[in-house]
Amino acid sequence: MTIDYYERISVLLDTLTERNIDVAMITAPANVFYYTGFNSDPHERFMALILDGRNKELTLFVPALDKEIAENESFVKNIVPISDEEDPFVKLKSKYGPSLQHIGLEKKEVSMFRHNQLQLAFPHASYDDIQPTINFQRGKKSRNEIDYLQEAVDIIEKVLAEGIKKVKIGMTETELAAELEFLMKKFGAVGPSFSTIVLAGEKAALPHGVPGERAFQNGDFLLIDFGVITKNGYCSDITRTFIIGEASEKQREIYNIVLESNQAGVNAVKAGVALKNFDIAARKVIDDSGYGDYFNNRVGHGLGVEVHEEPSIHENNDEIAEKGLLFTIEPGIYIPNYGGVRIEDEVYINEDGEVEVLTSFPREIQVL
Amino acid sequence: MTIDYYERISVLLDTLTERNIDVAMITAPANVFYYTGFNSDPHERFMALILDGRNKELTLFVPALDKEIAENESFVKNIVPISDEEDPFVKLKSKYGPSLQHIGLEKKEVSMFRHNQLQLAFPHASYDDIQPTINFQRGKKSRNEIDYLQEAVDIIEKVLAEGIKKVKIGMTETELAAELEFLMKKFGAVGPSFSTIVLAGEKAALPHGVPGERAFQNGDFLLIDFGVITKNGYCSDITRTFIIGEASEKQREIYNIVLESNQAGVNAVKAGVALKNFDIAARKVIDDSGYGDYFNNRVGHGLGVEVHEEPSIHENNDEIAEKGLLFTIEPGIYIPNYGGVRIEDEVYINEDGEVEVLTSFPREIQVL
Repeated sequence: MTIDYYERISVLLDTLTERNIDVAMITAPANVFYYTGFNSDPHERFMALILDGRNKELTLFVPALDKEIAENESFVKNIVPISDEEDPFVKLKSKYGPSLQHIGLEKKEVSMFRHNQLQLAFPHASYDDIQPTINFQRGKKSRNEIDYLQEAVDIIEKVLAEGIKKVKIGMTETELAAELEFLMKKFGAVGPSFSTIVLAGEKAALPHGVPGERAFQNGDFLLIDFGVITKNGYCSDITRTFIIGEASEKQREIYNIVLESNQAGVNAVKAGVALKNFDIAARKVIDDSGYGDYFNNRVGHGLGVEVHEEPSIHENNDEIAEKGLLFTIEPGIYIPNYGGVRIEDEVYINEDGEVEVLTSFPREIQVL
Repeated sequence: MTIDYYERISVLLDTLTERNIDVAMITAPANVFYYTGFNSDPHERFMALILDGRNKELTLFVPALDKEIAENESFVKNIVPISDEEDPFVKLKSKYGPSLQHIGLEKKEVSMFRHNQLQLAFPHASYDDIQPTINFQRGKKSRNEIDYLQEAVDIIEKVLAEGIKKVKIGMTETELAAELEFLMKKFGAVGPSFSTIVLAGEKAALPHGVPGERAFQNGDFLLIDFGVITKNGYCSDITRTFIIGEASEKQREIYNIVLESNQAGVNAVKAGVALKNFDIAARKVIDDSGYGDYFNNRVGHGLGVEVHEEPSIHENNDEIAEKGLLFTIEPGIYIPNYGGVRIEDEVYINEDGEVEVLTSFPREIQVL
């Protein structure tokens, strides 16, 4: 089971030909990884996969200190190191010539600064945004990719099953987060796919809260939102909310509304309709229950080699749900100074248009 | 001991007045944190601190789901939430009017896509890069910041002292990395400031290698490069290289050259001379020993609220070493397929121009 980088790059090269793009410069680290297998964050240094649409030549420019790893890991074997003293745009100009007419790049990735450097190096060039094309390609997951994504889900669900056994009164959010991230590595992940969210009691009302010294008390909500990135470079993302000790009537009411909303969202998923339908279906349950003011964000997002990818599942997204999409469904109710519940699953629309749910950790209310 | 956000913002507002900038839009998460105390990565969502230079009004635009945390944590209290269905540039246009003439922004942070959105919202605007100004301000650390940075160093040195006790033959790089990251949280850090590097044997030759299943063997180099981010939001970064079991003559030779290089670099640090001198001093030791081909990157980098900041300490940097700078000195020798040694310390040029070394973990060769 390996990734066919040649196939991935071929699709992109075809796009360059169709759109008459001379050269495509890919600098988003996740995209470089997607097309080469080389997974590296160059930070402020310059890294780019460059596809020359004219002669089909592929070149990977990397910081000099990453040359050896790139040679080992990259499908693209023509690697040009750039040392800290060199100007990458001078190198690009000398390789591709100052007369380039048409450059493809990722407009959400390339900064105004780099745009300016490009303009100086290639004064005759115009720019075409290839990011939507790349996002569309990345959005449609192959069966191989689903296997990798399932592996990431399997690890995080093992971590969750093991991790909640450690929960006890008086433990803090950060202590549990540390245990969970330790288990991720123990179970074979590279690490968390984003900073692990563990929120107790009233803090569970913060959709993006950060674990702190809040100690677990009887009657607390316990919201755990986390995921791993695997050695194959794929991410998982799941949320479950528990109750510690004893659940009140109101907690059960809120929990079951979110559960019903989650199921309505998942049940709405199918190929060929607008993505907004999945958000609307989940949101309607919460709206109808009177908690609509407490669910203020989109219901889901794609994931793959990054934990947030296209598509965005929100109530105004008219894009059509294509076969091959994988995304989360994660409705929640967040009541300030009281607490909150989120239940998040991963849903795949497979090659036959059928819906597969990758996450299988029990969704029913669980009192720890 | 708290940060004076008012003072930080005042300095920037003065710059806007001097440069006749109507409005400054700050979107780099680290810069938003630096000026407001709100530490958040909005991922693909829009977040900006906007300073109106005309009336000195400060506004923090945040994703709706982060509103409550922003209200709690931000020094700037005028917070405007943006929901997933809203267009942030429409909101900006309606607040600041379409006739803005002069916008300050971070040109290395703002993407071509956002630049285009700004051009549509503010068709008469020109753009001024305020990032160098911000970097200069961030580069000069106050004594309060050094206290926070020292706290980050103290934690990572405790982790290192505790972590190396766990090293044994047969343990893998990833196992040790997991233990180290667990200890970071145990000793009070939020987490690693970058993905922990643990490299054994020949893998120590990779300046940016990733821990894997390489098991520790007798005679291995063991390179550990890591740091934490603390609750106060400041980072540390240190490298030590050990030998497992027994050190060969060649290992000792290489180690001691790197140690001498590290000390030559640190000893060269002083205020008022060009930054390149520190790189040149460290590099000369390695060059003179005949290993110059195996040290291919700059000798150091600044750090603070991010683990990589200005200044860059490389052999062509003619910028002058100002009082207040904090940066790493981290020479190394990396021999492909054999192994490598790096010794990294953090050095501060204080307000009196004196040099303080924040890291104090022993530098002499240590066989585990």
